[in-house]
Order: sequence, then structure tokens, then C-alpha cells
Amino acid sequence: MARHFIIDCDTAEDDIMSLFMLVRNGISVEAVTIVEGNISYQQEINNALWALEFIGKDIKVYPGSDRPIVKSFRSVEEVHGKGGIGDILVKPSRLKPENKSAIDAIVELADRFSGEIEFLAISPLTNLALAYLKDKSIVDKVKKVWVMGGTAWGRGNITPVAEYNIWVDPDAAKIVFNAGFDITMVPWDVIVDYPVDEGVWNKIKGMNTKMSEFYVQIYSHYREYSMKNEKIGGTPHPDLITTSVAIDRSVIKSSEKHYVDIENCDCITRGMTVIDYLNIWKKAANTEVVYEIDFQKFLSMLFNLLSWF
Amino acid sequence: MARHFIIDCDTAEDDIMSLFMLVRNGISVEAVTIVEGNISYQQEINNALWALEFIGKDIKVYPGSDRPIVKSFRSVEEVHGKGGIGDILVKPSRLKPENKSAIDAIVELADRFSGEIEFLAISPLTNLALAYLKDKSIVDKVKKVWVMGGTAWGRGNITPVAEYNIWVDPDAAKIVFNAGFDITMVPWDVIVDYPVDEGVWNKIKGMNTKMSEFYVQIYSHYREYSMKNEKIGGTPHPDLITTSVAIDRSVIKSSEKHYVDIENCDCITRGMTVIDYLNIWKKAANTEVVYEIDFQKFLSMLFNLLSWF
Amino acid sequence: MARHFIIDCDTAEDDIMSLFMLVRNGISVEAVTIVEGNISYQQEINNALWALEFIGKDIKVYPGSDRPIVKSFRSVEEVHGKGGIGDILVKPSRLKPENKSAIDAIVELADRFSGEIEFLAISPLTNLALAYLKDKSIVDKVKKVWVMGGTAWGRGNITPVAEYNIWVDPDAAKIVFNAGFDITMVPWDVIVDYPVDEGVWNKIKGMNTKMSEFYVQIYSHYREYSMKNEKIGGTPHPDLITTSVAIDRSVIKSSEKHYVDIENCDCITRGMTVIDYLNIWKKAANTEVVYEIDFQKFLSMLFNLLSWF
Amino acid sequence: MARHFIIDCDTAEDDIMSLFMLVRNGISVEAVTIVEGNISYQQEINNALWALEFIGKDIKVYPGSDRPIVKSFRSVEEVHGKGGIGDILVKPSRLKPENKSAIDAIVELADRFSGEIEFLAISPLTNLALAYLKDKSIVDKVKKVWVMGGTAWGRGNITPVAEYNIWVDPDAAKIVFNAGFDITMVPWDVIVDYPVDEGVWNKIKGMNTKMSEFYVQIYSHYREYSMKNEKIGGTPHPDLITTSVAIDRSVIKSSEKHYVDIENCDCITRGMTVIDYLNIWKKAANTEVVYEIDFQKFLSMLFNLLSWF
Repeated sequence: MARHFIIDCDTAEDDIMSLFMLVRNGISVEAVTIVEGNISYQQEINNALWALEFIGKDIKVYPGSDRPIVKSFRSVEEVHGKGGIGDILVKPSRLKPENKSAIDAIVELADRFSGEIEFLAISPLTNLALAYLKDKSIVDKVKKVWVMGGTAWGRGNITPVAEYNIWVDPDAAKIVFNAGFDITMVPWDVIVDYPVDEGVWNKIKGMNTKMSEFYVQIYSHYREYSMKNEKIGGTPHPDLITTSVAIDRSVIKSSEKHYVDIENCDCITRGMTVIDYLNIWKKAANTEVVYEIDFQKFLSMLFNLLSWF
Repeated sequence: MARHFIIDCDTAEDDIMSLFMLVRNGISVEAVTIVEGNISYQQEINNALWALEFIGKDIKVYPGSDRPIVKSFRSVEEVHGKGGIGDILVKPSRLKPENKSAIDAIVELADRFSGEIEFLAISPLTNLALAYLKDKSIVDKVKKVWVMGGTAWGRGNITPVAEYNIWVDPDAAKIVFNAGFDITMVPWDVIVDYPVDEGVWNKIKGMNTKMSEFYVQIYSHYREYSMKNEKIGGTPHPDLITTSVAIDRSVIKSSEKHYVDIENCDCITRGMTVIDYLNIWKKAANTEVVYEIDFQKFLSMLFNLLSWF
Repeated sequence: MARHFIIDCDTAEDDIMSLFMLVRNGISVEAVTIVEGNISYQQEINNALWALEFIGKDIKVYPGSDRPIVKSFRSVEEVHGKGGIGDILVKPSRLKPENKSAIDAIVELADRFSGEIEFLAISPLTNLALAYLKDKSIVDKVKKVWVMGGTAWGRGNITPVAEYNIWVDPDAAKIVFNAGFDITMVPWDVIVDYPVDEGVWNKIKGMNTKMSEFYVQIYSHYREYSMKNEKIGGTPHPDLITTSVAIDRSVIKSSEKHYVDIENCDCITRGMTVIDYLNIWKKAANTEVVYEIDFQKFLSMLFNLLSWF
Repeated sequence: MARHFIIDCDTAEDDIMSLFMLVRNGISVEAVTIVEGNISYQQEINNALWALEFIGKDIKVYPGSDRPIVKSFRSVEEVHGKGGIGDILVKPSRLKPENKSAIDAIVELADRFSGEIEFLAISPLTNLALAYLKDKSIVDKVKKVWVMGGTAWGRGNITPVAEYNIWVDPDAAKIVFNAGFDITMVPWDVIVDYPVDEGVWNKIKGMNTKMSEFYVQIYSHYREYSMKNEKIGGTPHPDLITTSVAIDRSVIKSSEKHYVDIENCDCITRGMTVIDYLNIWKKAANTEVVYEIDFQKFLSMLFNLLSWF
């Protein structure tokens, strides 16, 4: 039985590959929703449509929020390039975004696939928060929320202690994490221990498939930035690892359930995921925090995707 | 030509009378939208429907947000009574709320009455903020936003420096005030100088109309609370004065245009309307702040309403 | 019987004239303490010593804090000129500052003049706060604290709602206001209603005394700035009016006792004096807030000072 | 050549043992300074004097701050017992605290032992911050500041992400960490990996020395609390490990220099040590953060102490 997913994108390279991995694994992607984040909002829409054209799939792309609920933020072109896949700016040739807003789409799909729909949150959480504020019943209808976001150990990327998705809209994150969703969170500082290193990168370069060439092309900028500026030993795959976890739980080597809250002040810890690991606050656990990844399992899924065509 | 209004209510006595004043003055009320605030959300819906039954008008009531975007808040039953019109809990006998959400209704009405629709914001600003986040074009379609909220001089009610509507959802207020709407704001600490005092109250009690009896019945609790706890010399009419200003600008004796921002921190000044009266921040003025009321004009409109039937 | 004062200065023109007014009125000034604020800290020390040379008084000048406790701040040379008395930088020719720190001096003088010493706080409150943290018993020994600071109505100068002294070190202010001192506060937005206007300015210019010439010389920059940038109808005298209030209570036309707290967040209301005018927080009143000034009384004291020599 | 130390205590069992370890290792302890924290301030003074009587040393005990600079806090009797060494309340029989304040003592000792004095900060940082504000030159005179405080990985004790010492007075911590001191910080969530477990505890119980019996007596309450409530596999020794690090750097197995700042907001991350591990903020490193401990080295120093007499 096909699983039903919504994938929420601030469409850079890792969002695109995440979308592809869902489709490759037979997931029924009911919607691609677009949210503010990595690059120019308009380019995020273009990237999603262009990516769908590349794999020849007519999945509906719904424009969502183009700004955090109330905070200001900045996009990170230095990380992903102006185009989110390097500096090149692509455009779809055929596909067009839907008129319906992502928030409406999320609410309707939650209702239509009540109890089944899963939300792959690999971007700032503005869309899901607004959908929840519109219709609270989605917490009972959305089966699972898979979050790429936050940190397990306070080792952030956009600031010393915060990961970008949560930092961009910490108010949205606070709403989502406290709403009652069934959340699995894959933190940034867990993911950075599982980069695609020199060996794997070269192996991919030698695969000679359309998808592997596409992969190399769209990840080159991000690879260089990550290795040079963040001292990671290769290309990190925050969104793609989260996607692989969503597709196959066995990618999780270890995880723990905690109550997690979000620091949403205008302060140096803005966007931090605060994990109540000692249950000091005596609140019910709301998040499965992933601590370790079965990297071989992830790699096998990556290669399976890259050998698609 | 009829003017077109949406009235946003956390339906206590002053919201009800404001709705009546709009209808009495030939305004076409396209929607009553309900938002969290004064009393239990469900009772706010009931009050709106019951009030419409009292004046025999089938105006659509749309349920909106029942909570601030991200803050916690408290209702103020001690001010308006459990039922918002004293402690009695009323129910409509016939009318029912719409299924459509207030946020959708606001967006659609803004589009349908583009350039004409006016928003009477006499409650926390959650609905308008969410409608704006859903469809930013409403700033160009909504002709005017009349806000009962904030303070001109830092003399609040729910806290020393903040007025209740803004305090309940300061994030929503910050969104609305910075969105680009054409706003006229009637502050709490201006309104308290214009209470219905002993003389007017007795005059109303002697009017012997259905509406004047209704008025006395629903305002008694609020009158007592305000005079005893807030040292006001009579019943304040924050919503109703704002409504009279919206209907007839000549109720404004003096006003000034400023850039106004909202303090939305978790701090003792939460919810304060910060008026940049010296233009220190060099931002374009976004709000006409009303400083003085033509009280006689307001009273004449009040008596006109109370003599309706 | 002479009264005993400590005057705490971020020595610009109005601090200097305040010091002179104390001496002129037979107050025994036990110390001039210097604190961060208006201009360069070193120049504040120079100004105090140079001013003492001008009136030929050897009052001890104690250097205090040169920074707020924990916030960052900025000096306001645009208001008072680089030298605090216009752009000219003066130096004392003879007098030197003490080695002892102002904090120690305050603690010792409080002890020596226990029950009598009065603190004229016309600058950021860092010194008094640190003295209190050093020796809490000073709250029982200091007879009175006269504060130039804050706003009565949220009409600030450095930001829309905050007055400079409190804004510079809101943490110090929070400590002082909650320590238990007997405080009279003269707010900025009360003072601006009592400027030295064209008529009085010209009268002073025609006095032909050394002091009146000195006054004109040191206030010219501040006068111009205030009239042009803050739309005040003349030269405001925040420190000097507070000093006149301290010397002679009859300068107070009306005042009220309230509990006043300080907003010390990093937010747009930083430094606001929050007056609990309705006693919502049920705390004991800690501050006499001055609401109106007997301007004629103040002017007579000003002229008395300017005719000194 | 003896090293010269000041030890700053909120005197519970681990502070006492830290003091003993300094003396045992031939350190010249110039002062014990007392600060708010673990238990009642008065009891902290008593404990320090009583402990000195136990080892027969007349080291001067200077009372310092009994409250954070501006925040409110709570003591943690549930952790250390009412008396800080269990529930028993001890009193010195002979020794008395000094009249001089700790802040003055720190400033004077820094001057007297300029370039040599070391500050063992195993408590909230209020005293050191106030000493710095009193005399900034101490940053050049204090050779080293050894801090027990903060977290390396966001795993706190008093709140999910903050360690107690920093949480109690985050403003003081922010002042100290940004002042320019040469700081080595031993974080709470590094220390918890090095508890005195069952085996070592039993070994100590079998040592039959006065000191080992004293140790068992004063640590029993803390041991039970830590094992039951914080899921630590034994008694943690945050202060004592930091002290051993201060005495002998070889106890540090690994460490890194970073710029560390403190979150001092009133928010859920209050008191967090924010480690700029990627140098995002481009500030000079101010702290050597200890990541790993040579536990055997520490244990040998512990046993050396416990076999003293």
C-alpha cells in the first residue's frame, strides 16, 4: 500500500533529491508545498517545477508562505548558490504552480487522507504551523511529521546553537512542536557526522547515470561550501537523510523520545531546539529525536536513487 | 452607497453594541468574525448569534482563531462576566455559525469587495494577521482597518502599559501594523476619558426602548467592574467609540499619523503600542492615532442606536 | 542645617548647572560621582573638574562606572556636542579626580551621613546600583534619591518610549527602583513642557553676569538640538528641574506615588519606566512620580543661580 | 613556588572538597569568597568556616554578593540538602568571616598578586563580575580564571540546556566571559561522564581516614540525588574536577579554544553557554572549553586528598 506524503520545500539541491527519493520508493507524493528559506521564494517554486520535469512527474506544487510568521530572516545563497543548486537559475519549461495556497492544500489533504498523510518537513515550519492554526484537527489526521531541523547537542549552522530551518521561523516551530503532532526529528549536528565523503563522491561520479550526473551537478556548490566553511568531511544531506528515515525507519540506529520546545526569543539562542532530556518540565514527550544513523543503509538508498535512470 | 464592513469580535457587550451600531447606520455588514479574547471562545460565537437574533439580522458569523498565534493568554471574565454580558450564558435559538473559517471569509470578502471592504478590529488581531499571511494582497483590497487597541500614553488595562486586544496577541498585532494597512487606532487611554457617566446612564435607563433596556442589561457588569477596579467615572466604550469613529470621522476631534510598532516580547511591556512620535526610526507612518473624541457626537450616535426600537 | 548631597553626573551642560544650583543654594555637596552616558567618559570627568574651577569649589570628583552593567549603549554627542557643552573640549587646569571609586565613595558617604545623605541621580543609574549591590544597607542610610529619568506617558527621547538615563542602563535602573530607596522621579515627558523659551533665553542673554554668559555658552548646542530635532519650544532642563525639585519640593505642582518597574529586555521598549498606575501588580509604591512643575518657581531659582556672579 | 588562588564558593560539599584539594596541593589560598547559589547564603558562610576549622586552616572568608546582579534565582536544597552537606546545619565554633567585602578583597588581591593570582570560579559568577566592574584592570592582573560552569553540548541540570552556576547569574557570566579574562571552563555535561561510581565509593568507604569519612558524610545526600534524579552513574564532582584541572592541567584530556557567550534573556535558554565552535561571529576565542577528562589522574588526586589525615 502506497504511503501518502506532503513534502515541504525551500527548494535547494537536498530538497530536490528528497522529493526524488520519495518518488523512487513508491511513495505517493500528494503535494509539494513551498516555503520561505534557502533562496529566493520564486526560485524555490521554479526549482520544484523544474525538478519534477526532470523526473517527468506531474505532482502539484502549492505556493505557501514566503516569510516567517513574525520574525525577519535571511536566505542563504552563500550555502546553496543563488539558484539553490549552485548559481545557475533554472526555470520549468512546462509545469506551473497551483493557484491554491499550500496551507489550504495541507488542510484538505489531511482531511482526504486522514490518518495516513505524512508530512516531510525539511524546511522552515511556517506552512505546517499556519495549516495547524487554520484547522487544529490536522494533528489527529496527519499520521507523522518528519522534521529535518534543530540540534541534538547545540551545534548549529546558521548560528552557533541553532539550525537554519528552526531559526528561520522559531515561532512556527514552537507552534508545531507543541501542537500534538507525532514528530520524528533528525537534528543537524547528528547529520553532519554522515557526510558523503571523497570516496562516495567519486563513486557517484563514476556511476554514469542521468541521475548521478544530475546529483553531481546540483550538489557541487553545497559540497564546496560545507567542506570549506563548516569543516564537514564531505557533503551533508540533512533533508535526504531525514527523507530516508521517513521512508525506512531502519535508517535510525538510535533515537529517544523527549519533550522538545523551541526558543523563539530575539536573542543569541533564537531557534534552538531545547530537549528536556531529564524531563525537568514534566511535559509529555512530543518528539522522537534521532541520535544515530545507519549510514550504510542510507547510502544504499542513495545509490538506489542515483541508479534510477 | 452602503459601506461594506467586516466586524471582528471577541463578543462581549461592547462588541455586540458595535455590531448593532453598524447595522443601525446602514452599513452592510458582510461578516462577523470571531476571535479569542474576552471570554470562552464558544460563548463568543453564541453571543454573536444571539445578538443577531435580537435585531433579527441574518449576518454570517465565521469562527476564526481561538488562540493567539504563539503566545499564551487569559480571558477576562472578571471584566465582562462569564457570559461577556454579565454572568448569564446566552444561546442562540435559531442561527448557526458558518462552516467556513473567518480567515478564508476575510480573504474572499476582501477580494469580492476589493477597495471597499473595511475591517472593524475591536478584538485581538489574530484573524486579520492570519488572513494577511494567507493572502498579502488584502492590504491593497482592504480599504481601512479601524483598530480598538493599544495606548497613546502607556496607560494600559490588562497590564500597566498594555491594552488587552494588543496584549492577547502582540505577534498578530505586529504583523498587522507592519503589513501596510491603512489603520486608524483608537487607544484605550484616550477612550477612558469618555465614559458613560451617571447622568447619561440614568438617561438611558429612562428611555424605555427595547434597545435601551438591552443595553442596560448587558453593560451592568462591565460598568460596575470599570468603575470599581479601573477608577473610570462610568462605563467605557472602547469598541463602540471606535465603531462610531469608523462610521463618522467627525467623532475624531484630533489625531496624528505616526509609525506605530508593537512590543511582542515576553516581558513586562508585552503588547505595548510603541508610537514613534518623533520619527526616530525614520519609518513611514502606518497609523492614524486618535487623541481626542467629540464626545457629544458619540453620544448622539449612541442615543440614536438606543432609540432604534 | 545644610543638606548633604551626592550628585551623579554624565557631565554635560545640564549636569554642570545642576551642580552649581546645589552649591548656590547652600547644599553641602559631598561628592560628584561620574558615570557613563552623554559623552566620552574622560570628558565627563574633565567637565566636572573644569566646572568646579569655574565656581572655585574643591568638591571631590570620584570616577565611577564607565559602562552599563551588562548592556551596550551609545553616547549622544549629537545632543550635547562632543564636549558636552557644545563641541569645545575643556580641561581643568588644576583640579584632579580622586583615586577612590565612586562606588566606594557612595557607600562610605552613606555611612558617614547616615539618614541624611541625598542622591541626585541625573544620569544613568549604574553607580547607585553598584553601590547598592556592594552594601545593601545604603537603602536605609540614603535619605532620598532624586531621579531625572524615565517617562510618565511613554514619550521618550533616545527611543520612542524610553528616556536616555534609564535606557543606557536599564538593569541598573531595575536594581535601584526595586531596592527600597525613597525615590522621586522627574520624567522626561513632563520636563519637555517646561522649556526655557525665546523670551526667557533673551532675558538671560541680557543679564550680563558671568554665570549667565556661562549658561548661554554651554547651552547653545543643546538648545539648538532640542528645538530642531525634538520639537521642543526651547531648551529643556531635565537635570536642572530635577535639582530644583530636590532643593525645594514646592517646585512640584502635582505628583503621585506608584510602583514603578523598568523594562530591561533587549527589545523596542528597553529602558521604559512602567508605572503601575492601577496597582495591578499589587506591589508597594516605590516612586513619587512628578506630573507637573511650578515653572515660575523653577525660573526664579534659575535666575537666582544665574545672578550668582 | 606556591601558586596563589582565590576560591569562590556557594559552599556545598563539592566546594568544601575543592578548597581542601587546593590546600592539600600546596596552593596558597589567599581568600575564600562567598556568593549566592546552592543554599542559604548564611549557611554558605558557616560551611566555609566550619570546613576550615576541620582542616585547621585560618584562611580569610570574605562575604560577597548574596543575590544575582539583576535576575531572580532559586537555591537548590533538594540537590545538596538544607545544609549543603545533607540536611544537617553546621556552624563554625571559632572562625568568623571578614568584614571586608569579597569584591574589595578580589580587587586588592589581584593587585597584590598581580600576574599570579588565579580565580577558581565554582559558583555563580556574581563576585568576579562585580570585582571586574569595580576595577577593570583585574583582567590583566588575574592570571587565570577556572570556571566550573555551562555546558559543552546543551545538556544542563537546572534547566534542560543550562548549568546552575551560569543560570543563577547569566548577566554576571556574560560580563565575565566578555571581559578579557583567560578562562578555562569545565562544563557540566562533560563532568557527568566522570562520576564516582559504586566501586570508587566503596573503596573510599574502606579507607578509614578522617578525610574519607568526612567525604562520605558530606556527599551522601548529593550522591543519592544525582543518581536518582539526574540519572548519573555515581556522584558527580563538578567543582572538584574543575579544581583538579586548575591544579594540574594534565587532568585535561582534550580541550578547544572558542569564543563563548552567555544567553542572559528571560527565556527557556537562560544561562546557556553558547559556544561559537564554527567562529561564525568572528570574535577572538575567550575560553578554553574542556571536552574530556583524564579520570584516572583525577581519581589519583582525589585519593591523595582523602588520605590526607
